[in-house]
Amino acid sequence: MFYHIKELQYQAKPSKPDPIYAKKLQEVLGGQFGEISVMMQYLFQGFNCRAEEKYRDLLLDIGTEEIAHVEMLATMISRLLDNAPIGDQEAAYASNPALAAIMGGMNPQHAIVSGLGAMPADSVGNRWTADYIIGSGNLIADFRANLNAESQGRLQVARLYNMTDDPSVRDMLAFLLARDTAHQNQWIAAIAELEAAEGDVVVPTTFPRELEKQAVSYDLYNFSRGEESSKGRWAQGPAPDGRGTFKYVSQPVPYASKPKLMPAPPYIFNTPPMMK
Amino acid sequence: MFYHIKELQYQAKPSKPDPIYAKKLQEVLGGQFGEISVMMQYLFQGFNCRAEEKYRDLLLDIGTEEIAHVEMLATMISRLLDNAPIGDQEAAYASNPALAAIMGGMNPQHAIVSGLGAMPADSVGNRWTADYIIGSGNLIADFRANLNAESQGRLQVARLYNMTDDPSVRDMLAFLLARDTAHQNQWIAAIAELEAAEGDVVVPTTFPRELEKQAVSYDLYNFSRGEESSKGRWAQGPAPDGRGTFKYVSQPVPYASKPKLMPAPPYIFNTPPMMK
Amino acid sequence: MFYHIKELQYQAKPSKPDPIYAKKLQEVLGGQFGEISVMMQYLFQGFNCRAEEKYRDLLLDIGTEEIAHVEMLATMISRLLDNAPIGDQEAAYASNPALAAIMGGMNPQHAIVSGLGAMPADSVGNRWTADYIIGSGNLIADFRANLNAESQGRLQVARLYNMTDDPSVRDMLAFLLARDTAHQNQWIAAIAELEAAEGDVVVPTTFPRELEKQAVSYDLYNFSRGEESSKGRWAQGPAPDGRGTFKYVSQPVPYASKPKLMPAPPYIFNTPPMMK
Amino acid sequence: MFYHIKELQYQAKPSKPDPIYAKKLQEVLGGQFGEISVMMQYLFQGFNCRAEEKYRDLLLDIGTEEIAHVEMLATMISRLLDNAPIGDQEAAYASNPALAAIMGGMNPQHAIVSGLGAMPADSVGNRWTADYIIGSGNLIADFRANLNAESQGRLQVARLYNMTDDPSVRDMLAFLLARDTAHQNQWIAAIAELEAAEGDVVVPTTFPRELEKQAVSYDLYNFSRGEESSKGRWAQGPAPDGRGTFKYVSQPVPYASKPKLMPAPPYIFNTPPMMK
Amino acid sequence: MFYHIKELQYQAKPSKPDPIYAKKLQEVLGGQFGEISVMMQYLFQGFNCRAEEKYRDLLLDIGTEEIAHVEMLATMISRLLDNAPIGDQEAAYASNPALAAIMGGMNPQHAIVSGLGAMPADSVGNRWTADYIIGSGNLIADFRANLNAESQGRLQVARLYNMTDDPSVRDMLAFLLARDTAHQNQWIAAIAELEAAEGDVVVPTTFPRELEKQAVSYDLYNFSRGEESSKGRWAQGPAPDGRGTFKYVSQPVPYASKPKLMPAPPYIFNTPPMMK
Amino acid sequence: MFYHIKELQYQAKPSKPDPIYAKKLQEVLGGQFGEISVMMQYLFQGFNCRAEEKYRDLLLDIGTEEIAHVEMLATMISRLLDNAPIGDQEAAYASNPALAAIMGGMNPQHAIVSGLGAMPADSVGNRWTADYIIGSGNLIADFRANLNAESQGRLQVARLYNMTDDPSVRDMLAFLLARDTAHQNQWIAAIAELEAAEGDVVVPTTFPRELEKQAVSYDLYNFSRGEESSKGRWAQGPAPDGRGTFKYVSQPVPYASKPKLMPAPPYIFNTPPMMK
Repeated sequence: MFYHIKELQYQAKPSKPDPIYAKKLQEVLGGQFGEISVMMQYLFQGFNCRAEEKYRDLLLDIGTEEIAHVEMLATMISRLLDNAPIGDQEAAYASNPALAAIMGGMNPQHAIVSGLGAMPADSVGNRWTADYIIGSGNLIADFRANLNAESQGRLQVARLYNMTDDPSVRDMLAFLLARDTAHQNQWIAAIAELEAAEGDVVVPTTFPRELEKQAVSYDLYNFSRGEESSKGRWAQGPAPDGRGTFKYVSQPVPYASKPKLMPAPPYIFNTPPMMK
Repeated sequence: MFYHIKELQYQAKPSKPDPIYAKKLQEVLGGQFGEISVMMQYLFQGFNCRAEEKYRDLLLDIGTEEIAHVEMLATMISRLLDNAPIGDQEAAYASNPALAAIMGGMNPQHAIVSGLGAMPADSVGNRWTADYIIGSGNLIADFRANLNAESQGRLQVARLYNMTDDPSVRDMLAFLLARDTAHQNQWIAAIAELEAAEGDVVVPTTFPRELEKQAVSYDLYNFSRGEESSKGRWAQGPAPDGRGTFKYVSQPVPYASKPKLMPAPPYIFNTPPMMK
Repeated sequence: MFYHIKELQYQAKPSKPDPIYAKKLQEVLGGQFGEISVMMQYLFQGFNCRAEEKYRDLLLDIGTEEIAHVEMLATMISRLLDNAPIGDQEAAYASNPALAAIMGGMNPQHAIVSGLGAMPADSVGNRWTADYIIGSGNLIADFRANLNAESQGRLQVARLYNMTDDPSVRDMLAFLLARDTAHQNQWIAAIAELEAAEGDVVVPTTFPRELEKQAVSYDLYNFSRGEESSKGRWAQGPAPDGRGTFKYVSQPVPYASKPKLMPAPPYIFNTPPMMK
Repeated sequence: MFYHIKELQYQAKPSKPDPIYAKKLQEVLGGQFGEISVMMQYLFQGFNCRAEEKYRDLLLDIGTEEIAHVEMLATMISRLLDNAPIGDQEAAYASNPALAAIMGGMNPQHAIVSGLGAMPADSVGNRWTADYIIGSGNLIADFRANLNAESQGRLQVARLYNMTDDPSVRDMLAFLLARDTAHQNQWIAAIAELEAAEGDVVVPTTFPRELEKQAVSYDLYNFSRGEESSKGRWAQGPAPDGRGTFKYVSQPVPYASKPKLMPAPPYIFNTPPMMK
Repeated sequence: MFYHIKELQYQAKPSKPDPIYAKKLQEVLGGQFGEISVMMQYLFQGFNCRAEEKYRDLLLDIGTEEIAHVEMLATMISRLLDNAPIGDQEAAYASNPALAAIMGGMNPQHAIVSGLGAMPADSVGNRWTADYIIGSGNLIADFRANLNAESQGRLQVARLYNMTDDPSVRDMLAFLLARDTAHQNQWIAAIAELEAAEGDVVVPTTFPRELEKQAVSYDLYNFSRGEESSKGRWAQGPAPDGRGTFKYVSQPVPYASKPKLMPAPPYIFNTPPMMK
Repeated sequence: MFYHIKELQYQAKPSKPDPIYAKKLQEVLGGQFGEISVMMQYLFQGFNCRAEEKYRDLLLDIGTEEIAHVEMLATMISRLLDNAPIGDQEAAYASNPALAAIMGGMNPQHAIVSGLGAMPADSVGNRWTADYIIGSGNLIADFRANLNAESQGRLQVARLYNMTDDPSVRDMLAFLLARDTAHQNQWIAAIAELEAAEGDVVVPTTFPRELEKQAVSYDLYNFSRGEESSKGRWAQGPAPDGRGTFKYVSQPVPYASKPKLMPAPPYIFNTPPMMK
């Protein structure tokens, strides 16, 4: 069960309105790796957690924090939309065509749909979808998803940081960057702990290795001509799981012959077999 | 540019048809972490790669292999759909209601839409969408996405392995499991190499740390009551990035006061300020 | 069955082309609360109607009118796209960078995809989806959905009215505003009639109240700190259904203990229980 | 900012596993009118609220409660998925084909994707999308959306109540039904208060009525042959807004002539005008 | 503008309820090539038509007929859902597990969401989306889209015809099959007329051929090993446009060298160039 | 199985960066009729092909070529994004507001999400979805889909050709236009060959014509007032299938009476029948 307090985790007040930037900032609120994604991903992983209590608690600690990040970004976006010159545009635009053009860069739904409010959408208006998230019940897998989300998320915030010169906006982004630093470190630590406990780095660790086709478990196939990829750590030496050695296969060949599918039965009305 | 040969990378022929299993197997073809996802993710990361040539080559090596996995799974699904008792159902079903019921579990689109062919969709029929994939241009971030995809993907294949007893289907899944083992190892190795080269594990490593709010870069906030999460490696000791120490904050408090948004201008037609 | 006449229900001819406004106007054609939404929602509610004939007739009266509104908006948008300076842009733009910039604000799909025609999409290009609509078979519920759609729709038209100064466009919007006024009034009247006939305002009225947990049927829980919400009509006095009294619960507490989920069976390959 | 406690707002433990019902129950978790929808809708309306503080507080009170409902449903679904006979199916199914068939009715993603966990999806597997929700900044409009959501939601819970005979599941649904009763009453009360304060029922109330085409503001057009719809309250007498009288128009005619669109310019490559 | 009459274009009453078939029949109502798709595609092409009046009239003739097909299918589906044994399932299922299993094959949303009504969705529950349709303004292109839609649609109806033995359902499908026959013939005739008038079969016919890279305008590249494709009409002889001759290229080679992308600027935070 | 070479099929290097055009060019990469669509459509049709080997080979020849087109467009888009003035915008924009405005027309996700790389999305940012493609197993139907895709695709490329004056971009588009010319011709030839072999043009040709309602198989119903559509080839004379004669029906009437749906059972909680 949840409780809310009205205070924000961190300040979310720009120095001045900027509807164009409001549109861009939507990416880290409602985009693929925005705050809604991490909030929903961690909460669902936490609610569904069948493992040790400390993992559930960790997921719900961070997932609950992310709701507050959604709140901060929504608040910042609403304020960036203050005083957008929409209603009196004719006058303003007549005397200032460049302004008209710049305003053309704002998201029209911020005026028409949300009434100068933040939207659960990304920077081009795609609505948030649960296609973005995962909770599989396997925590190494899921924490790798989480680490990915925090990595992509921090990257996007860093890019957005350099797209504004508003010190107050940058201040809030600096807070989010730091929290993403924390969360990347935490998921890395949690993954390491789980890998050590399970004794393997290949997910799922509990599927018996002898059931897989082990002859190809460490091959790198050179399907793209040129052997540059043979020069990486991934193509030679012991594999990170400690159970095999990478092998670079310069000229990969197929293991099976060419397939021939049966005709479909007549009631399917596919193309009929042709008479000769 | 690409070339195709008709041979399959590995056999994809079931011992007997099984339309119900065909429906389930769609998950690892056209689902969130199916072969279409890794194929498209790696190819786009490769095509867009602005880094050293060996990374581009690696991405295109594996991305090209994944097209072959799409081909294998599509072939297997088509064959699992052979001889589905659809057209003559009345006779069969009258004498065997359990059969009727079981056939009710197949995906109706396999008969109505694809004519007993595989579909670019998951096990419940959601069409594949590029919402599932990412290519950010930052390779540590993207390789973490790739490691996540291979982890979730191998997990799903392992689950599917145990949902059939057809030895030929299991044989093909055993091949895919091994390839996922290889790819997990390879992405882990590539990530390690990049982290070492860039000198940090926090993405993006090139954003100046002094610009983030470093006071909170290693905190874990206890937003979910109960202190179980304090017992993990993520809550104490040095952080994996080697630049700070985790700190568990038992009673987190907000850093900002409660926000108050300005009224919208009249031409937005939001709820008007009320008269007292 | 339907018949079409070529005449428009109301004029849909702008005084001059305006491709930027064409993009914005798409919102009330193909957006969440655009004319396609009300058309499809009312027609499906009408086709599926199992209640008294007069409700089916009402739904099909208004649903059929909405097809004409789709037609009017499509026509207006096509005409707003006339003479867009796309093909000869280099010359025009070289001499007039502000014009170039403004044209950058038009929807590129209006030129590339639809050939200067209206699209079944919103103002940022999201395609219309049946996710937007509902027909439940319960008419109070559905008429509330309809009232909501007309309210959001009229709000969006009002906002768009102030974003143009073309008197002919405004004239058409004035017509749509009036029809939305009519439809809001009509759904309000229909809801009132049904509530009176069914003797309750809580949907569905036929589910036996004694089966619900009546102890909590009128509580307002103060889950967000601060008691401002206690000052509304919704927190005190008799509830609108006439069967209970609102109760403000200042410090809400949980009714259940903390859940503990069972481990998944091994063949699911979730995180395994750890050895101590 | 938010805090979480581990206790559930209400019990969420079935008397026995039931994977088929778990699939159905997803509808009120992740469907169009499920708990994720109300949670996200109320939180966004609250975060964006520019009106009096008591409305923001009300939205955040109820929105925060809905997160707890998401948690309860997720927990219930996870437990309904316990012991699903997936891994050992061959043995069980061989001796019991009806069981095999019934299990065919579960959502395969509950086994393959989520590892026996709840998903942010509806009862047929469509992922939750923000297409379902609205926050316009106009509170009468938005509270009508909320009333609709609670109406459709309670209707769906009532239907699900009758699709199980598990007393523990029914007990939780009885709690949700009661909360939906409370929320329907609360939104009705809030709407009434706002309508009274703003002095009109037609949203937005602040758009000047004289700017709309008032001649058609109370007409009901008989576009579907048959005059049954003339017999409702919506076709005669004073309109609910108190500013006009409904008028039934038996034979509606168009107000405008037939449109003729200009040819597109050549660089658009539409069908060229034909020579005679 | 549109008028509706209550009579159906053709009977839509099954001999007996069949909720399983109702689920399947949704495909040709709300699927990719269902009646909603052709209705919306033809209406939008008609509303946007900038060509000769007879094309607009043709599109609106057929588009208006398709609304009636949506109505017929919605009606049929509602009736197939009559008497579904949902509410009293425990008793019925206890005595008849096969029945329970069969009912497990119905779409749960037909009971939970639509209240035994048709839905704007396909046979697996994907909501209809305007992603399915096109209106480009180029009529040869669009009529090819229409011919495709009628071809896929008639194919699906034919498959569904053989999946039921209800003579009344088959009777309605026989009507739809005939109308699809008519529409396929009509689009073929219209395409032929336009191709003759424009003097070419390659869309758009008005783009100057000399601007394209004519050296490769008739090549078939053998990118998939094996020369079976050289045996078709498409690989030899004069091309249908009468302007060139097909040429089979057995060993296609690239025309360009390998690309090398520039590094991104630092403020994008992509992977940095490595030091040697 | 597939092999990749690094060389591009054709040059993909612009004369100068142009981030605005990069946004537009996305349409033919990741839009409804972009290269991803034809690649995926042909590959799936090929993998699923149950007909003669030459069709499978044709599909895989062209499908494999299309992967190379995806590669070319992705490369071109990445290069058009070079040197976008994002990071140093304040300085540049202060001195040049028109530039600021023009840059406002680029897709913000090209900077924030993809790090100056191409995206699997269209020109307004909608992610690619398999909703766009079809593979039915009936080759006449599917080749009509392919002909449509090549027609819409070439049309869009032609429009884009006129929206740039960069000779290098135009050169690549000239190559794509030529390949689309080839593919349109090839699908036309393949369709003609199949129609001849199957002896009919109405898909599916194998459904017995006597089972359809042949009385209406050649009617054109005048559902949109005005008889312009009677003047086309589609309304008179022999139908293209050679089995009937078109008939123009000036005043179409319904064949069935008005439907009346039964009330739903009480446990569905629809609107109850009213007492009189």
